[in-house]
Amino acid sequence: MNAPADLLVTNLGELVTCEPALGEGPLGVIKNGALAVAEGRVVWVGPASRLHREVVTCAEAREIDGGGRVGLPGFVDSHTHLIFAGSREHEYALRARGASYQEIAAAGGGILSTVKATRAASVDELVALARPRVRTLLEHGTTTTEVKSGYGLTTADELKMLAAAKRLGETQPVEVHANFCGAHEIPPEYTGRTDAYVDLVVDEMLPAVAERRLARYVDVFCEDGVFSVAQARRVLEAGARWGLRAKFHADEFVTLGGAELAAEVRALSADHLLRARPEGVARMKAVGVTATLLPGTAFFLGLPYAPARAFLETGARVALASDFNPGSSMGPNLQLVMTMAVSQMKMSPEEALLGVTLHGAHAMGLEEEIGSLRPGKRCDLLLADVPNWRYLSYYYGVNHVSRVIKRGRLVYER
Amino acid sequence: MNAPADLLVTNLGELVTCEPALGEGPLGVIKNGALAVAEGRVVWVGPASRLHREVVTCAEAREIDGGGRVGLPGFVDSHTHLIFAGSREHEYALRARGASYQEIAAAGGGILSTVKATRAASVDELVALARPRVRTLLEHGTTTTEVKSGYGLTTADELKMLAAAKRLGETQPVEVHANFCGAHEIPPEYTGRTDAYVDLVVDEMLPAVAERRLARYVDVFCEDGVFSVAQARRVLEAGARWGLRAKFHADEFVTLGGAELAAEVRALSADHLLRARPEGVARMKAVGVTATLLPGTAFFLGLPYAPARAFLETGARVALASDFNPGSSMGPNLQLVMTMAVSQMKMSPEEALLGVTLHGAHAMGLEEEIGSLRPGKRCDLLLADVPNWRYLSYYYGVNHVSRVIKRGRLVYER
Repeated sequence: MNAPADLLVTNLGELVTCEPALGEGPLGVIKNGALAVAEGRVVWVGPASRLHREVVTCAEAREIDGGGRVGLPGFVDSHTHLIFAGSREHEYALRARGASYQEIAAAGGGILSTVKATRAASVDELVALARPRVRTLLEHGTTTTEVKSGYGLTTADELKMLAAAKRLGETQPVEVHANFCGAHEIPPEYTGRTDAYVDLVVDEMLPAVAERRLARYVDVFCEDGVFSVAQARRVLEAGARWGLRAKFHADEFVTLGGAELAAEVRALSADHLLRARPEGVARMKAVGVTATLLPGTAFFLGLPYAPARAFLETGARVALASDFNPGSSMGPNLQLVMTMAVSQMKMSPEEALLGVTLHGAHAMGLEEEIGSLRPGKRCDLLLADVPNWRYLSYYYGVNHVSRVIKRGRLVYER
Repeated sequence: MNAPADLLVTNLGELVTCEPALGEGPLGVIKNGALAVAEGRVVWVGPASRLHREVVTCAEAREIDGGGRVGLPGFVDSHTHLIFAGSREHEYALRARGASYQEIAAAGGGILSTVKATRAASVDELVALARPRVRTLLEHGTTTTEVKSGYGLTTADELKMLAAAKRLGETQPVEVHANFCGAHEIPPEYTGRTDAYVDLVVDEMLPAVAERRLARYVDVFCEDGVFSVAQARRVLEAGARWGLRAKFHADEFVTLGGAELAAEVRALSADHLLRARPEGVARMKAVGVTATLLPGTAFFLGLPYAPARAFLETGARVALASDFNPGSSMGPNLQLVMTMAVSQMKMSPEEALLGVTLHGAHAMGLEEEIGSLRPGKRCDLLLADVPNWRYLSYYYGVNHVSRVIKRGRLVYER
């Protein structure tokens, strides 16, 4: 028996549950819908006409009038690097025009410029820099986000980034889950000694992170010239021994076998996959690994997009995330990511919306808690000023979200 | 001698004048800048430190503190179809996946579905539908926009659309200039009789539009299967006799010679040009015709982008506009269009910003009035919440504009 509802959200032109069993079509849409919440969790969804007949409310229950808007689950951004110091707007044009890594580095840019600035920043500074970025996520509908470390690349600096992520999660409404990404790049001190750096990650960083419970996931940039499949396997397996789920960069620029590795280590998610083999993604599918695509990065860098349809044809679960980061995609708007998915990757609007909600939750191992509006899950709810859910990707480049409810609490309104 | 200033805008981290002579680089950037306005026109720009020494103010002068923000000219969107009735979100996924015109029409979509809905709407209804769209333009920094007719396709319905454009321009802050686009499509009543429809456009619609002074420009969709180069020439030359400047759809899907026609008729602008020959654009350049690119349409439809660099290499002036319309690009955000220009068309950030300001003004024949912040021009000014102007295209998918000043009047603030 549910607790009596303490929040009712009424008068929703459409309620998009993202649960086919609860409404029409693959998104489970309820026309003229309503939703009831108790103690931050959804306890009822259905047609508004049945709300007062079916739901018991407590005396002090609040009511939010949806005003005919569309209600949908809060977005889940399962891949971001939003904690960083420094700024890289000058290399943007260079990168987009295909400048080499060397040219960018010579111009003072590249990931190591972010590493340098991040190492020089304190936890307080990193939190202060990240706060407006997370606020922008919230305003655009993201209620849960993953945040990676990986711009520290020393034990102390990686711990510092993860401490900043923790503080960030505790001091504003967006739920933050940290991903330890010490193996994001080879720091200058270890040039030519990648295995020695992997030793440091595995033997020193991972235990330090795990003992402090500073991360939920472990990541590695498995890529030609960075970490090989064998090195990535070491990092991910060591992470598993410390209880961290694998969620990592695979087959972004070169076909290296990252998708196959993700299947082998039973990762939560393999991300990017621009160059993944569909057979590799089929193996991921067979063991339930989510394929996370980041079209904003291809857009920003002017690269070909991931072959989403080939992956979908394997039956794989495809999530979409922002990859929000200062070098390869300075964009946090998952509504626009949906438009990219439809316009550029030929996903259906339904697949795109599931990609930033339920499938994003799967990519973070949180599918029992968030990502859809099913009784029992947390009430992370967006109200969007659109005539119907299709406008979320169709009417693009603008922000349709006008209210954000996190765990049953109204945390943003405009 | 200027009138004493009645408005001062101070404390601008950067003032981007878009006039190289007035500051640094191709954008004429003034660090720590300020601007003075009298009777809606810029009378002075320069370093804030010299403002009070150099500018005479009237007693009741107002001051806006820029708070360190970036100031830049209001955006000029020189190509939109934002007046329409009906809704086409259902065909979006079909189009992006490459459905044929026939399949889309069979599913109830396509331009003729917009024509049907627009014919059924009154002027009041069209204005009411367009008003929130123009508001969204304003919020994203567009202070002047072109609006086309072309969903009526009868004399009465084209006049109705243009009357709606006029009313729209008179009842909200964004400056609206109408483009008569009766030759946008062949209406069903004229199927197989395109020349007869061109007769109607030339002999009946154009005089009716011109006598009522309802349009500043004349447009035609010069495209395979729609209007040939010869038919387009007839429309544009007839428009010229009525004093309407040519500004038209050229070489969008097929290389037809639209660019060459634009040069021949001395158009203000030829638009789209996805398939234009660089030699044709070179001819445009030689006679001062602006090349207007609409990357949002390529993005939305999943088509290859216009070869902007080849056009720029001819020395042509390249403007950027939104093409905001319900079928092929439901997106009004020129900040995002800049990002597309850089990431996808390899334009420099400077070229992109000029494309939506000064070059957009050229495409509308308004370069003496708007598009840059030069003393003598109207004060259409944006304040953007960014550390520097490069963030306008670099930090993408969000709206950086926080204040909009139109003709010296603060018309939007958030």
